[in-house]
Amino acid sequence: MGSERIELLLKLAELGAIGEKKEVTLRELASILDTSPQSVLRLIRDLEREGLVSRGSSGRKTRLELTEKGLELLERLHERLERALYQGLILGEVVSGLGEGSYYVQLYKDRIKEYLGFEPFPGTLNVRVIFPKTVFDALADVRPILIPGFVRDGRTFGDVKAYPVRVEGIEGAIVVPSRTVHPPKIAEIIAPVNLRETLRLKDGSRIRIQALRR
Amino acid sequence: MGSERIELLLKLAELGAIGEKKEVTLRELASILDTSPQSVLRLIRDLEREGLVSRGSSGRKTRLELTEKGLELLERLHERLERALYQGLILGEVVSGLGEGSYYVQLYKDRIKEYLGFEPFPGTLNVRVIFPKTVFDALADVRPILIPGFVRDGRTFGDVKAYPVRVEGIEGAIVVPSRTVHPPKIAEIIAPVNLRETLRLKDGSRIRIQALRR
Repeated sequence: MGSERIELLLKLAELGAIGEKKEVTLRELASILDTSPQSVLRLIRDLEREGLVSRGSSGRKTRLELTEKGLELLERLHERLERALYQGLILGEVVSGLGEGSYYVQLYKDRIKEYLGFEPFPGTLNVRVIFPKTVFDALADVRPILIPGFVRDGRTFGDVKAYPVRVEGIEGAIVVPSRTVHPPKIAEIIAPVNLRETLRLKDGSRIRIQALRR
Repeated sequence: MGSERIELLLKLAELGAIGEKKEVTLRELASILDTSPQSVLRLIRDLEREGLVSRGSSGRKTRLELTEKGLELLERLHERLERALYQGLILGEVVSGLGEGSYYVQLYKDRIKEYLGFEPFPGTLNVRVIFPKTVFDALADVRPILIPGFVRDGRTFGDVKAYPVRVEGIEGAIVVPSRTVHPPKIAEIIAPVNLRETLRLKDGSRIRIQALRR
């Protein structure tokens, strides 16, 4: 199926031609689809014949609406893209941290052992996320393990969300403070071993992180 | 752009060819795309030339991976679909309620007036959602007004989320109990007037509901 079709159906959705007809001009659609008005008209007739759009006209104007079948086609495409793109896979590039990670991993060490089942190497591997846009996009469907916060010497240390992951065969977890509001571009990974050494990574190395669903 | 292209790129994402090459067979791809292995090979070469996939081969096997550019193309398509489909528009069909709505609207009347700014007609218009799949899909990006619950005669009445909407020019709100876990297929609408009478609706009437973003 030609993707001018998808482009045209998507354009109609963007115009709000859902549940009511919207006026379109062939010239405008032709320019969007980078084709001729004649081709657009042919395309519309094809879509109408397949029951994906319904058409009305008032004078010389063309009025179009997505049918339920047309809407379903777009919804299905959206769902497939969502599932395929956000299946818990993260591509990233190793970067240097500020050394803070080590401090926090030591502080939460006992809790990490209790909640994640491994004694963490005292440091984090920092990864700049390349795909998807943010760590949260990739982890939207993954249920985190909540490591509860605590108070020590009058200072409060907050809850931490841990997302179990596998990096080149090694299991660890991406850790995110629960309070974080902004979708982070940096994923901090803890593991039982020094990932940087074990996997011979250096700044700029590409890695592939797979979130583990439970 | 031909949509065998989108179909092929999407198929590669589904196979997990993200950040690593995956083995594919031309025969299999041809059958998915309903075309010939020769056409698939041509398509792959086109996609490679455009920098959307990268290819490696081991013996007679073809190994493919989506490039960052290929991933971006799919992410952009996903985003456009998401925005166009879930813009707060709901298509539905009027159905009969159980009369419970009236009871609850009267109970929450003063709070509805305080939080939504109108005195509600004592009843709800029940709409079976046709598009999108659930009320929640449509309202995912809409911030609700929280009407707080209360205790009366020892009985607890929970918080209610109200999503301001416009139905054929009349402003009202879709109301959803905060505790609801399951995405409802029925939208209950309150308004200052009797929507069923004012809009001359009967069971089976199609209506178009637009959520109002604030």
